[in-house]
Amino acid sequence: MIITVTPNPALDLTYTVPAIELGETHRVAAAAVRAGGKGLNVARVLHQNGPPVLAITPSGGRSGQEFAAELAASQLSHHIVPVRGATRRSVALVDERAGQTSIFNEYGENHTASEWQELTDAVRTALEDAAFAPGGVTCLVGSGSLPAGADPQFYAALVELAAARGIPAVIDTSGPALLAAARAGATVLKPNRQELAEATGQGDPLRGAQALLDAGATLVLVSLGEDGMLAVSRREPRSPWRARLPGALAGNPTGAGDAAVAAVAACLAEGITDPESILRRATAWSAAAVLMPLAGEISPRHVDLAGELVVDRTSPPRLEHR
Amino acid sequence: MIITVTPNPALDLTYTVPAIELGETHRVAAAAVRAGGKGLNVARVLHQNGPPVLAITPSGGRSGQEFAAELAASQLSHHIVPVRGATRRSVALVDERAGQTSIFNEYGENHTASEWQELTDAVRTALEDAAFAPGGVTCLVGSGSLPAGADPQFYAALVELAAARGIPAVIDTSGPALLAAARAGATVLKPNRQELAEATGQGDPLRGAQALLDAGATLVLVSLGEDGMLAVSRREPRSPWRARLPGALAGNPTGAGDAAVAAVAACLAEGITDPESILRRATAWSAAAVLMPLAGEISPRHVDLAGELVVDRTSPPRLEHR
Repeated sequence: MIITVTPNPALDLTYTVPAIELGETHRVAAAAVRAGGKGLNVARVLHQNGPPVLAITPSGGRSGQEFAAELAASQLSHHIVPVRGATRRSVALVDERAGQTSIFNEYGENHTASEWQELTDAVRTALEDAAFAPGGVTCLVGSGSLPAGADPQFYAALVELAAARGIPAVIDTSGPALLAAARAGATVLKPNRQELAEATGQGDPLRGAQALLDAGATLVLVSLGEDGMLAVSRREPRSPWRARLPGALAGNPTGAGDAAVAAVAACLAEGITDPESILRRATAWSAAAVLMPLAGEISPRHVDLAGELVVDRTSPPRLEHR
Repeated sequence: MIITVTPNPALDLTYTVPAIELGETHRVAAAAVRAGGKGLNVARVLHQNGPPVLAITPSGGRSGQEFAAELAASQLSHHIVPVRGATRRSVALVDERAGQTSIFNEYGENHTASEWQELTDAVRTALEDAAFAPGGVTCLVGSGSLPAGADPQFYAALVELAAARGIPAVIDTSGPALLAAARAGATVLKPNRQELAEATGQGDPLRGAQALLDAGATLVLVSLGEDGMLAVSRREPRSPWRARLPGALAGNPTGAGDAAVAAVAACLAEGITDPESILRRATAWSAAAVLMPLAGEISPRHVDLAGELVVDRTSPPRLEHR
């Protein structure tokens, strides 16, 4: 079983608008309402394509009631930790004419210290309970931002909980929480180019990835948008793999990174640990997410897309004999 | 007591965004959540500034639960008619840099025939019950669009219910429902310029207003945005009043028309029926709504604004003796 943790989820409202005209009033069809947040998107992709998954997330307030009801309707196995603060909303406006999506993410209220403790305890309990299930726990995923004011060590503590049980941890976050997860020895980190630059101060994705490996991570995947994805491993940090599609894909890139994380978790759950294989599946699932209108889904075309990938590798500089 | 009816309400989410960049992801503060819809905005303005008011509205679904909870918290006297369809949402994005608001209104599901009947029955019951309250019912207000597929006679039937009890009816709607309300003998109609042109086929606001008077209305106020407001009465249809501020106001025009309707209802409740007095208050309250961030509120500056109005009148052409 794969466990995903989403500490700062959102009630996602997605509107499809024929053409957005700023300053004007638009008539639109009812929003597609989803219990969202990056870890839940990961769980949905796994629920559709991978091994059994359990999603752990807090929820609170009136928006949290709608969030919990939608999650129940989704048939995704989940555990909700009740919190006092209202679950934030995220509004996505898909402009059909422009072919682009504008997103408005509420910050999200921070949880209280005891609520954070309950969330961590819920993860610990799930790790313990699922250890006796068939197959045990094969991967722990922590995804998404933390609310402002949260302890940046939250994901690091999850990495340590998993490591103490020999379970790999995949963390997709940003800022100090990303660095802390690296220092705690996360198995895989998946920042995008901008998150990596902000967290490490390195403008070059390879150097940024190497900084996270130096800190303690085992494998770093850097999503590069239309330029594909980079995989840099601690074993061969100067010899990264890169995968990309031969051409750009039109679609909704929201959730593409989450599909990549789902692919990584699915690989680890299957015992696949070589960087090239992980990178291939992550890039294909990520591209297949762009083809779907909502985050948390991937197109069955991921199989074809995997076959179309252009994968290359920078050889490590060899010691020259002079 | 003034009764307002809102057949197609909305859960309003208002986001204040420092600067909207289409195609980008924005971090925003939690939405201001309001039980909205034009008749509820009217009721809120009256609750703040006028005589007692009762708001009647349907509500349904999970969004309707949040709608009902917010309405309860607002301390506005209200009666909810439960319906099966989910209450629609409306998202407003206030761009602080551009000083403009973009609005995304969901269409709203139509009610069933029996739900429409229950809504009409609720209005009839309220008219009967309140008839014995101190002051009785002084005005019935029907505001806002009807869901697609609704009978355009809905407001007309309300006008007739009120007229049978000698109660004036103010209707703010568009399309066939506006024409039907005129034919039913509405006391006051308040289309904006575009709604009036669409309903009557008359591009000129004076001719459009005259068409509604010919159909059966007693007074037509036409909101002209920054150009102020026009009042045309059945008694002197060729001699309209016009009121405007000497300069444009910066602010949020959402809800300005609803404040005008509230002013009309407040006037009628006080027995004020002359077009100039009604026009002055409607224009001042409308302008005072622009100064407030959310619909359903007016600035206390409405008193000053009333004093600044430029009001003029086109004299009726006199019969010339030759």
